[in-house]
Amino acid sequence: FGTPAGGGVAPKLLFRQLFEKESSTYTYLLADVGHPDRPALLIDPVDRTVDRDLSLTKDLGLKLIYALNTHCHADHVTGTGLIKASYTLLALYVANIFFTKMPTVKSIISKESGAKADLFVEAGDRVYIGNLFLEVRATPGHTVGCVTYVTGDERDQPQPRMAFTGDALLIRGCGRTDFQGGSSSQLYHSVHSQIFTLPKDTLLYPAHDYKGFTVTTVEEETTCNPRLSKDEGTFTNIMENLNLPYPKMIDVAVPANMVCGLQDPPLSAI
Amino acid sequence: FGTPAGGGVAPKLLFRQLFEKESSTYTYLLADVGHPDRPALLIDPVDRTVDRDLSLTKDLGLKLIYALNTHCHADHVTGTGLIKASYTLLALYVANIFFTKMPTVKSIISKESGAKADLFVEAGDRVYIGNLFLEVRATPGHTVGCVTYVTGDERDQPQPRMAFTGDALLIRGCGRTDFQGGSSSQLYHSVHSQIFTLPKDTLLYPAHDYKGFTVTTVEEETTCNPRLSKDEGTFTNIMENLNLPYPKMIDVAVPANMVCGLQDPPLSAI
Ligand SMILES: [Fe+2]
Ligand SMILES: [Fe+2]
Repeated sequence: FGTPAGGGVAPKLLFRQLFEKESSTYTYLLADVGHPDRPALLIDPVDRTVDRDLSLTKDLGLKLIYALNTHCHADHVTGTGLIKASYTLLALYVANIFFTKMPTVKSIISKESGAKADLFVEAGDRVYIGNLFLEVRATPGHTVGCVTYVTGDERDQPQPRMAFTGDALLIRGCGRTDFQGGSSSQLYHSVHSQIFTLPKDTLLYPAHDYKGFTVTTVEEETTCNPRLSKDEGTFTNIMENLNLPYPKMIDVAVPANMVCGLQDPPLSAI
Repeated sequence: FGTPAGGGVAPKLLFRQLFEKESSTYTYLLADVGHPDRPALLIDPVDRTVDRDLSLTKDLGLKLIYALNTHCHADHVTGTGLIKASYTLLALYVANIFFTKMPTVKSIISKESGAKADLFVEAGDRVYIGNLFLEVRATPGHTVGCVTYVTGDERDQPQPRMAFTGDALLIRGCGRTDFQGGSSSQLYHSVHSQIFTLPKDTLLYPAHDYKGFTVTTVEEETTCNPRLSKDEGTFTNIMENLNLPYPKMIDVAVPANMVCGLQDPPLSAI
C-alpha cells in the first residue's frame, strides 16, 4: 500500500511507544522524518487515547496517513474510527474556509479478520510511509485474522528490525486462543514460522503488557517465553488449561472493532 | 564510580524501559553487553517491581552492579533496598554451599539528597558499567538533591544521547516544587542549563508519565513543554498556582527513601 517515496532521501524512523493503562494496550507511532512530508502511521490506536495520539502527531509535525490494526481486538475499542472522524471533521471545517482538501487517514486491517476498513492487507503486502515500510506477516491463532507488521529487510530500513506482534506474541506470554476463531496449534506455528525465524536481535513490540515490560527480542522469547519456548504439545496443553474468565470487554469491543471502531461514526459520537 | 573496563571491547548498550502502574514510575535498565561480564545498572527501581526487574536481569544474563536513584522520591518506595537485600540473601545462601562471593549491588544517590546510600555522586561524576558511562548533572528544583544521569558524549557511547531526568523534566510537564526543598526558579534554571543545552535529538526519559508517553527529546520539550518552554516568570507563576493536593505517598515514601528504601532491611522484610 502506497509506494516508496523515492527522491533519493534516506528514510529516517521516528518511533514512539504509547501506553493505555485501562486495557494495558500499546499503540505505536512510526514516521519517516527523512521525508519532507513526514508521513506517519499508528498501530493499534485505542479510542480513549486518540486525543493524545493526534496531539502528539501534531506536536511532531507529522502527517498521519494510516491507522493499522494487528487484529480485531476483544479487550478495547480501536481508535481507528475516531481518528478517521477527527480528520474528516477537520477536513469539512477547513474545506468550508479554504476550499482545500485535507489529508485523510486510511484504516488498515487484514482481509482474514472479516472486519471493515479502508484497506485490507494480506501476507507479503507492504505498507509504505515515505521510504519506510512494514511487511505484513500472517500470524493467526489468537484470532483468525491476526497479522504481525515487520520493518523492512533492506539496507536503508531500521536496524535492528522491529516486529509489531499484536497478541500473537506477548512478552513472556501470548494471547489467549479460546475465542474469535483462536487455535493454539495454529498460534504455535504462526509464532515459530513467522516471528522466531526473524533475526535474533529483532525487537518485538506487543499489543499489550500487564507487568510493565515494553519490549523484548526474538532471542529472549525463544529462550525465556514460558509457553512458546516449549514444544507444541506442551504449548497446546498449557493453552487449553488456562481457565481464563470470559473477556471483560469482548461484547462491547468486538462488535465495535468489526466495523473498525465505528468505521463511519455518526457526528454525534465524536 | 568504577572505571572504564577497557580491554579493547566496544561498548554495546542493552536498554529497557520498565513501567510500574500504581505510581506510574519508569525504571530503566542499562547494560554493556559488549563487555564479557555484561554489567548492568537500574535507575529508579520501585519496591513493588523488584522481582520483575531482577528476573529480567537474570533472563538477560546481566550482572547488576548499581541501583541509582535520581532523587529521594515522595511517591513510591525505591526498590534499591530490596535489591541489595535480595543479592545479600542470595550471597549468604550460595556462600554456604560454594564458599564463594556473590556480586553485590551498590546503591547510588546524590550527596545533596541527604539520603543514605552506598555511594554518593555529584555533578561531573561518571558512573561506569563496563565501557559505558553515565554523567551526573545536578538538576535541583523538584528536590534539592535531584540529579539527571546522561549517557556519555564520546564517540563509542550511545547515539543519540539519552538523559534520565527523574522528576526535573517530565514529558510536557515537570515535577512539583512545593515540597522537599523544591524551588520553581531553581528548577527552571536546572532544566534550561543542564538539560535543554544537550543536543536537540537527545532522548529524554522521565521518572514518571501519567498519560502513557514513554520518551521525548530536547527539541520536543523546548518547543512543546507547556511550562518549561515559557519564560521564567511565567513558569514560576504556573508552578505557584498548581494547587496540588498533599502528595499521597509522601509520609511513607520519603522516610523510607531517605534510607534508600530500607538501606539494610531486616531479613523479615523480604
Ligand atoms: Fe486481542
Ligand atoms: Fe519525585
